[in-house]
Amino acid sequence: MTALTEARKTRLTTALGDAPFDAFLAASPANVDQATGYRSVSGQLFRQHQMAALVTDSGTTLVCPVADSGPAIDAGLHGDDLVCFGRFYFESVDPAAAPTKLVDQHDDVVQAIRTAVQRRLRPGQRIGVDVDGLHGLWPAVQAALPDGIETVDASSWATTVRAVKTSGEIELLAKAAALAEDGIERALAQAKPGVTEQELATEVSHAMVAGGGSPRFVVVTSGERSALADAAPSARQLRHGDLLRFDVGCVVDGYWSDVGRTAVIGEPSAEQTRRYDAILAGEQAQLDWVRPGVSAREMFDVAVRTVEVAGLAPYRRQHCGHGIGSDVYEPPIISPSFDTPLESGMTFCFETPYYQLGWGGMMVEDTVVITDSGYELLTHSDRSLRVVPA
Amino acid sequence: MTALTEARKTRLTTALGDAPFDAFLAASPANVDQATGYRSVSGQLFRQHQMAALVTDSGTTLVCPVADSGPAIDAGLHGDDLVCFGRFYFESVDPAAAPTKLVDQHDDVVQAIRTAVQRRLRPGQRIGVDVDGLHGLWPAVQAALPDGIETVDASSWATTVRAVKTSGEIELLAKAAALAEDGIERALAQAKPGVTEQELATEVSHAMVAGGGSPRFVVVTSGERSALADAAPSARQLRHGDLLRFDVGCVVDGYWSDVGRTAVIGEPSAEQTRRYDAILAGEQAQLDWVRPGVSAREMFDVAVRTVEVAGLAPYRRQHCGHGIGSDVYEPPIISPSFDTPLESGMTFCFETPYYQLGWGGMMVEDTVVITDSGYELLTHSDRSLRVVPA
Repeated sequence: MTALTEARKTRLTTALGDAPFDAFLAASPANVDQATGYRSVSGQLFRQHQMAALVTDSGTTLVCPVADSGPAIDAGLHGDDLVCFGRFYFESVDPAAAPTKLVDQHDDVVQAIRTAVQRRLRPGQRIGVDVDGLHGLWPAVQAALPDGIETVDASSWATTVRAVKTSGEIELLAKAAALAEDGIERALAQAKPGVTEQELATEVSHAMVAGGGSPRFVVVTSGERSALADAAPSARQLRHGDLLRFDVGCVVDGYWSDVGRTAVIGEPSAEQTRRYDAILAGEQAQLDWVRPGVSAREMFDVAVRTVEVAGLAPYRRQHCGHGIGSDVYEPPIISPSFDTPLESGMTFCFETPYYQLGWGGMMVEDTVVITDSGYELLTHSDRSLRVVPA
Repeated sequence: MTALTEARKTRLTTALGDAPFDAFLAASPANVDQATGYRSVSGQLFRQHQMAALVTDSGTTLVCPVADSGPAIDAGLHGDDLVCFGRFYFESVDPAAAPTKLVDQHDDVVQAIRTAVQRRLRPGQRIGVDVDGLHGLWPAVQAALPDGIETVDASSWATTVRAVKTSGEIELLAKAAALAEDGIERALAQAKPGVTEQELATEVSHAMVAGGGSPRFVVVTSGERSALADAAPSARQLRHGDLLRFDVGCVVDGYWSDVGRTAVIGEPSAEQTRRYDAILAGEQAQLDWVRPGVSAREMFDVAVRTVEVAGLAPYRRQHCGHGIGSDVYEPPIISPSFDTPLESGMTFCFETPYYQLGWGGMMVEDTVVITDSGYELLTHSDRSLRVVPA
């Protein structure tokens, strides 16, 4: 088991000791990863892939398809701590080895969860359930639980536990952010009139791959397309005067990046400069304001108010940032809906995008870790409106 | 609208004309893409991203988050054909433009689907529903439908419609397959003792990215790890005598590849050669046997029987291939559960993997399109047990 896996498991079991339930049933890929250190290749491919982990003070049971049993054991789990479902054949030189015996033990994940609960818990005990992670499966799981087991929705508890990051997590987030920034810088070095959005996106992805990251979203849009928010890069060629907007992220060992930068092809117009200065002022105000104890809602308000005071009004946003970790969006979201006070060790993307259809879009987005005295940036590249010589 | 989008929509509306329902409600990302030509960036990132498309003989309505409205219109949809939910702000130089008016029209996807149905259908009409694509959302959607609308589960109908590919789809599948093969060849050229699985996986991803593909799974495993089926590449260094197994795929414009090859570092042992010859014989038997009218089950049986006759017995598999297209696994699956007769224009991966824990794993997997006279391979690289000089 790696030091990171160990530290995350300790964080989770410590939190469980203070929780109003005896066990935690993790279901989202990120929550299962936290609980076990195992990330399924199939789980990253298939929306319908199902996995769960039951965390108790006596240990953790992974519930997974038989096909995941081989890699899960390789990742450090014990065969006795797996409850599998479905059909997949691993042969073995040791006929008594666990995975060969796991085939067809349970028809589906619901039955396997029931078995895991029966093994680990007794009537009268209570499980905190990652209901959000189970999606539509929750009614079936609830119906199948053994008699006498109580449940409570622990979806938000699970993400709260993950909000304050370990040092190993911060290192991975910093690495993922650096690869996204490296991609943007490489793309900017290639940008000029005639080059396409897709060609620049390829540069970004190459940089991520070269550093050991997996590209996950590479939004490179230009001209009027820069106003489209999350749109795929197209064959559109850059032209003089274009806005060029990057919103890109990759995953490194399960941890995400999400970085935004904006450039102009040639000298920026007065309007481009004025508007960018306003959104940059908004993001800078967040950095100037942030410290432990400030609420996510306040961070939203300071961003919106500053952008408007700086002359871009009305500035309408549903959020101005979000937590980031083993999910790209983690609570607290920097929005009016979250009164959560920020804590030292939490990691955020702060962002102030602006999208005007028919004109263009711009953004600046950076990653920070909250510290006792304020914050530390995990991104390091030039945050100004970048100028591509043309 | 691209020619490919047009061809797919025609295929879908033609099939709808023969279906026992008046409209089709698509919900999985692949089915929505078929119906509309729109692929959401967020939809590829978030399991919980929700979208739907209602296809009728009078036109198609896309149900999507407001954040998707800008890129969807850019992709060729008309604003009047969108029903949106949630909050996201696009400003516009034209204040009357559609996306600026779409904010907060519906709280959630369920209410938006209800509105789409009300606009397109009248009481007494029947909808075929992509129930599988809706996952756990189906009960809520069903409860919210207007009175008098009948529904029928059309999940398998939807994938059947997509099974016979258009020429444009086959081109994209061929391109995606070529990028996967190029990645494997580049990695084989770098392979030697001391090189790590991760380093070779990076080579594979670079090749995919260079050709305009998005790497989706890059399973590069060696030595005993090659037996782990879908496992992430590790820092393990190649050693003399190792098996080296590739199972890799990328996406090109929404279409997948999935290619498998096996190598040995240095001269193969007699056992490695004997076993690989058996699985290659199994895959070759599939190619020799395949033609329109043969069932998926027969294709499974011929593979398993041939591997066993060739000396690798028992050869236990849950499947020996699968359809491939805008999902990496599409029905019919080459398994005992599918009696489906193969048709000209269907596209498949045929594969005969073998995993023995404690020894290693090997596979050969190729992509074919079924033709009137048999098949055409979309993969072209050497299928033999590859030898890496060491």
